[in-house]
Amino acid sequence: MPISFDRARELAQRLRRGLSLDVLKGRLTPRDPELHPPPPRLPAQGLWSDEARTARLAALEARVGELPHLGGRAAAVDAATLKGNIENFVGMTQIPTGVVGPLRINGLHAHGDYFVPLATSEGALVASFDRGARLITAAGGVATLVTTEQVQRAPGFVFASIAEAALFAAWAVEQFEHWRAVASTATSHGQLVDLQTHIEANHVYLIFHFYTGDAAGQNMVTFCTAAICTDLLARSPISPTTWFLEANMSGDKKATALSFISTRGRNATAEVRLPAALVEKRLHTTPERMAQYWRMSFIGGVQSGSIGVSGHISNGIAALFLATGQDVACVSEASVGITRMEVEADGSLYAAVSLPNLIVGTVGGGTRLPTANECLRLLDCVGADRASRLAEIAAAVALAGELSIVGSLCAGDFSRAHAAFGRNKAAR
Amino acid sequence: MPISFDRARELAQRLRRGLSLDVLKGRLTPRDPELHPPPPRLPAQGLWSDEARTARLAALEARVGELPHLGGRAAAVDAATLKGNIENFVGMTQIPTGVVGPLRINGLHAHGDYFVPLATSEGALVASFDRGARLITAAGGVATLVTTEQVQRAPGFVFASIAEAALFAAWAVEQFEHWRAVASTATSHGQLVDLQTHIEANHVYLIFHFYTGDAAGQNMVTFCTAAICTDLLARSPISPTTWFLEANMSGDKKATALSFISTRGRNATAEVRLPAALVEKRLHTTPERMAQYWRMSFIGGVQSGSIGVSGHISNGIAALFLATGQDVACVSEASVGITRMEVEADGSLYAAVSLPNLIVGTVGGGTRLPTANECLRLLDCVGADRASRLAEIAAAVALAGELSIVGSLCAGDFSRAHAAFGRNKAAR
Amino acid sequence: MPISFDRARELAQRLRRGLSLDVLKGRLTPRDPELHPPPPRLPAQGLWSDEARTARLAALEARVGELPHLGGRAAAVDAATLKGNIENFVGMTQIPTGVVGPLRINGLHAHGDYFVPLATSEGALVASFDRGARLITAAGGVATLVTTEQVQRAPGFVFASIAEAALFAAWAVEQFEHWRAVASTATSHGQLVDLQTHIEANHVYLIFHFYTGDAAGQNMVTFCTAAICTDLLARSPISPTTWFLEANMSGDKKATALSFISTRGRNATAEVRLPAALVEKRLHTTPERMAQYWRMSFIGGVQSGSIGVSGHISNGIAALFLATGQDVACVSEASVGITRMEVEADGSLYAAVSLPNLIVGTVGGGTRLPTANECLRLLDCVGADRASRLAEIAAAVALAGELSIVGSLCAGDFSRAHAAFGRNKAAR
Amino acid sequence: MPISFDRARELAQRLRRGLSLDVLKGRLTPRDPELHPPPPRLPAQGLWSDEARTARLAALEARVGELPHLGGRAAAVDAATLKGNIENFVGMTQIPTGVVGPLRINGLHAHGDYFVPLATSEGALVASFDRGARLITAAGGVATLVTTEQVQRAPGFVFASIAEAALFAAWAVEQFEHWRAVASTATSHGQLVDLQTHIEANHVYLIFHFYTGDAAGQNMVTFCTAAICTDLLARSPISPTTWFLEANMSGDKKATALSFISTRGRNATAEVRLPAALVEKRLHTTPERMAQYWRMSFIGGVQSGSIGVSGHISNGIAALFLATGQDVACVSEASVGITRMEVEADGSLYAAVSLPNLIVGTVGGGTRLPTANECLRLLDCVGADRASRLAEIAAAVALAGELSIVGSLCAGDFSRAHAAFGRNKAAR
Repeated sequence: MPISFDRARELAQRLRRGLSLDVLKGRLTPRDPELHPPPPRLPAQGLWSDEARTARLAALEARVGELPHLGGRAAAVDAATLKGNIENFVGMTQIPTGVVGPLRINGLHAHGDYFVPLATSEGALVASFDRGARLITAAGGVATLVTTEQVQRAPGFVFASIAEAALFAAWAVEQFEHWRAVASTATSHGQLVDLQTHIEANHVYLIFHFYTGDAAGQNMVTFCTAAICTDLLARSPISPTTWFLEANMSGDKKATALSFISTRGRNATAEVRLPAALVEKRLHTTPERMAQYWRMSFIGGVQSGSIGVSGHISNGIAALFLATGQDVACVSEASVGITRMEVEADGSLYAAVSLPNLIVGTVGGGTRLPTANECLRLLDCVGADRASRLAEIAAAVALAGELSIVGSLCAGDFSRAHAAFGRNKAAR
Repeated sequence: MPISFDRARELAQRLRRGLSLDVLKGRLTPRDPELHPPPPRLPAQGLWSDEARTARLAALEARVGELPHLGGRAAAVDAATLKGNIENFVGMTQIPTGVVGPLRINGLHAHGDYFVPLATSEGALVASFDRGARLITAAGGVATLVTTEQVQRAPGFVFASIAEAALFAAWAVEQFEHWRAVASTATSHGQLVDLQTHIEANHVYLIFHFYTGDAAGQNMVTFCTAAICTDLLARSPISPTTWFLEANMSGDKKATALSFISTRGRNATAEVRLPAALVEKRLHTTPERMAQYWRMSFIGGVQSGSIGVSGHISNGIAALFLATGQDVACVSEASVGITRMEVEADGSLYAAVSLPNLIVGTVGGGTRLPTANECLRLLDCVGADRASRLAEIAAAVALAGELSIVGSLCAGDFSRAHAAFGRNKAAR
Repeated sequence: MPISFDRARELAQRLRRGLSLDVLKGRLTPRDPELHPPPPRLPAQGLWSDEARTARLAALEARVGELPHLGGRAAAVDAATLKGNIENFVGMTQIPTGVVGPLRINGLHAHGDYFVPLATSEGALVASFDRGARLITAAGGVATLVTTEQVQRAPGFVFASIAEAALFAAWAVEQFEHWRAVASTATSHGQLVDLQTHIEANHVYLIFHFYTGDAAGQNMVTFCTAAICTDLLARSPISPTTWFLEANMSGDKKATALSFISTRGRNATAEVRLPAALVEKRLHTTPERMAQYWRMSFIGGVQSGSIGVSGHISNGIAALFLATGQDVACVSEASVGITRMEVEADGSLYAAVSLPNLIVGTVGGGTRLPTANECLRLLDCVGADRASRLAEIAAAVALAGELSIVGSLCAGDFSRAHAAFGRNKAAR
Repeated sequence: MPISFDRARELAQRLRRGLSLDVLKGRLTPRDPELHPPPPRLPAQGLWSDEARTARLAALEARVGELPHLGGRAAAVDAATLKGNIENFVGMTQIPTGVVGPLRINGLHAHGDYFVPLATSEGALVASFDRGARLITAAGGVATLVTTEQVQRAPGFVFASIAEAALFAAWAVEQFEHWRAVASTATSHGQLVDLQTHIEANHVYLIFHFYTGDAAGQNMVTFCTAAICTDLLARSPISPTTWFLEANMSGDKKATALSFISTRGRNATAEVRLPAALVEKRLHTTPERMAQYWRMSFIGGVQSGSIGVSGHISNGIAALFLATGQDVACVSEASVGITRMEVEADGSLYAAVSLPNLIVGTVGGGTRLPTANECLRLLDCVGADRASRLAEIAAAVALAGELSIVGSLCAGDFSRAHAAFGRNKAAR
């Protein structure tokens, strides 16, 4: 969000169709780990050996079935099957992958105790997110919700004058229903849902917003917009002197204020309440100190001129995207968001993240690649009707990471943790 | 840059020590492919098969020796060797990797005809960057230069009042030489090079800038800053009421105006001049139209509120970082920059990128991982004295990508290219 | 803009109701000063004396009638009449006011040859804008157009959880028509036209957009939003734990990316084409050089991290706002925009400004103050149905200023002009 | 700040020269109004009549002597004396001016109980700032401090290649001491204090930083930079193909991330602690609620994409600048800053503002205009060695306004206050 009121109304109708406040609150309520015990951690924590790795894999396979590619037991992928994912193929880059959890997620789409794969080469990252995940689980889990979704494509049109530009823009907005039909001929899963016009002198930018179903959707919106533009050029009463299919107002693969204020991909938010005793036991600090850190670091972020203000969300998003076949170039936009921490009246810590630009898909792109597909399977995120689940998992993971790093900076063990888990010699 | 004049003076001295204008211009001058023919493209372009892949690998191995991990002929990595890169290890995520080139680079540190590995699952990406790379080579190559380097860590200190905060800041800046010595005890490769103080009421943020040699350096600056803070707390005449090792003004792993204006990692710039005939032949458009697109898309980027304005630099940076063991969470910051295109008096296209936040390393982090190490070897970027070379290659690759995508949007084949190379069925 | 498609459609209908392309183009077409000679400049240019001032005033009074307060011939204002404009009144601050023009404006709402009052104490400012104004007139005038209008107020609501926050937001968007009716009870001139919801964890921000007629509207939107919130609190199925009438997402009196991307106040754009010969004669430079300056300064602006990129628009906006009784605190937002200059195929210079945040009014606020009212009368902007005219004049004035300063920086006489007109001794 | 360490060291030396922590803390410590009673408020509060105005003026004149121009008793200003402030002069724009206070300021440069003139036409503004000022006084006053000062000018240079650009930049930084001498020939009050270089491909931006003494300094830095550029062009071993005296990286008259992060003009910060009982008595709310509002509104500001985050600082800055002859176009930059509110351990409210871009002067510009000079006299800010005092007063006034508006939004009387003081009929 923000979303225009008409589209919001449609979303509202979706959300309320069979979804009462009681039901939603029920889905998002913490589940006490005493009453509903989570599964045990993976075996052999803290060990680096092939045996330890095998033991962990076996535990995961017991939950979701065979994981031969992740396990290194499968034959090499056939190059012929990679068309659509790569050109000039020479081999597979291999990135170490660890698992965090159990992470209890109480979301609308993601609901359960998850073991989340993270691919990275940065020492301490998995350990840190794992600590945050188990802390959340101990508190009954994270509530999380995708509130809206859309992907943009923004063609640009040049006119002879501002008079022509303005009349073109006025004409264009009246074509919305027609273009909705045009778009539907170019896609079976997508849907045109909004159109904004932006006039800069004799330049007109049209920002088309699409639902893209369970695909990340960047190609889908390109094809739909191309179809709309063909129609536009044939029917517009005012001809542009020239035009471009994308004029850099879609926010594609970069952090922008426009996407941050709006939604690009999925807009997901996640929250957790941590009793003071739990914070002290697990993070060796207090809610008050974490709230103080939040205040100082939030102002620090504003002073650094970042878009959105958070800690190290990009670490979790990049590692999750890598493992699950998402487009890692989108880390630029997907990791933009707001982290908030405050002390509640009863002394608990309230912590939340809001991530409005989660470009994720569970079909298309890299999702069918062998290891990615297995990692998606670990999360029950293979195929249709799963993209919002993946987005809610991403938000939950991001919150786990924020809790852990802030706890670390408050307890004064941030440097120590990196000395323990990082590649110290080279690093120094 | 910008850099403070004293440090700049030091850089200037480095730059001029044995580096005359003639020498630098010589290094950065285009080399005519007629007079200095580049190596041939890799074999079997446009084919997806194991044979094609094998042929390409063989061609690369003929240049740089065995690439067994990339080639899928090596034994699986021993989990015990991954300590420092991953925890809770379960297996390797595999990302398809293609090669673009030859890309002729006329840089200070990178000089030659390069075949560049890019890891991605996004169809059309490698094909697009390959087109741009060969276009650049046909024009005699890209001139590129790292102009400065530094990595920040920014602890925060809270005081009882602004009077104490201001006096602490005044004291802190006088400790620079002392802390330079303290930092040198915590690292053998790093060096404290600058210190900025930032007062927000009773909060003081100290921004320490370090040279980090050939390491990306995020751990190094943490250890050095921890050592400095220990000294600071012992010696400061004014005690903070509390403090944090990092207060979110270092720009770590996010796009920020502060890093963009300054340098975080390596600051590299790259330029090329393309004769009009070459643009028409290879990109099917004209320099005038590309300059017009640049203008419209640059304003579009400003209107979207991005930090820096460019096209799809994150695509190239993410793919290069993945292949070469860099930290992909840093794509958020490393892909921030400026792309510029304009028509010269003789009708040529002048195109350039400036990337001030290239966090890259050739030692530490993921660089010793098997496939990453092989990919670094492809670029002659293994080990010491290579990080600036990798940064110059990154800038050259980014420029190749910008030329190709802008050409595509100007010629009107952007949508067509994605239909040809993308996973169309799923995407639609 | 951008605007949601439904509201844009309404605007489009307005724009097209009786407004054909021919009519609009007719209004915005340059009028050749040879065929339609403008009035002469005010007398005694370049003289500083009471006689010169009297001569200029007389020329203006011949056009619009008596200007006794500006002329210093009126009795002091009665303090009792100032209720609503000031408290703790002690006297009138006096700001020197000059007049630029004739400025030929070919706008939809502003159409004619204007003499524009500017209040400032900065030497060279009026001379510079006057130069730009007469240059524009010599080229047949500036085309200008208000494309949309709206003012925001953004209350914030806190909930117990994200579940409650999301359901509240979904409920809120469905109340739009009802709140439209509620708002109409609180104002006779305003109208609720859009509503956006923004969820950050358990915080919901509602952004209400209003038409405010010919008032700047900040008080009007406050009263309307207060009425809506009263209704909301009585009827919402989900109660916020607390709420605030304004939660800092309205962009009030500051530069924000959100307002810049959208519209706050009036969104006006203005353009002019200057033949190369005219540029050379009047500005002593060339269109090519001005386009080159634009490119370098536009990138400079991006690197400085400004919101929108322009030259010194705030100078013109502040001086016009001061003279005409507008709220000068709004200079922060009203001067945000885009300036563009480029060379056309025939060698002319195309120059334009786009100002999306022109908070202006011709009723209420300071507009009834004696000198302000006289200055508004000079522009035929007193009272109802005049605010869009004032916005178009503001855009035209801003463009005049941009042309003059860029011309000056290109011709190399910027420093000289300030030495001639500024208060050199003190300034040095 | 941030400032480069060498310059900071110089500042540190200044600050410490004869300025011990005890002395500074003594200057900035609250003075209990019971022990040190402030002067009474101006008479006839809440009355709008000529008698009330005369009574207030008389009270002020008893403090600082005759104020004939503010009082409306002086002859009209002679047009001949306005050269350097205005061209094409036709008369004086008159802006209602009220006075707030007493405002107790415990600053390094501003120290005492001030009556502060504010010029505005916005009803409720003076009443609101007055409420905040007296609240501060009741708490013993505001601590405030100018921590640094500088004004920038940023010429741009174009080169044939990045090789030439980089070598030019390396040469330029070595000329610092020489240019310091050159600058001193162009000004008797200014001083070159820093130089940053910024390379964007073949473009080099040099950012010169100057002390400008008690002048706002924009003309001074223009003349100094012109002198430096003359020297540069004569002596540079590498000639630019063209250059411009200002290339839009100085932040002049606009909000920019660069100026916000750095200092432009004076960098002043102000803080106050308010006991809970005082907050409840005067603002009818609690510190907890104000801290909660701060949190929600601060995040709201981040989401709106503002540079810095605050409430309505521009209201106070614009009104103070107008009254005291400052450049109101600079409101765009001068009102950028950070407001912070939090609850202390003892339940008090800690509130602070930090304003890094206060472009103010007490000589030159509009400061010698009759009413401005009288208003400056009210503040003991006429002439040399007074600009830092004016900056500290500005920060104190801004904090007063923030406290009042946040209190109003928390107590729920924001709308009511505007209904009481605003021009309701027109506004509705």
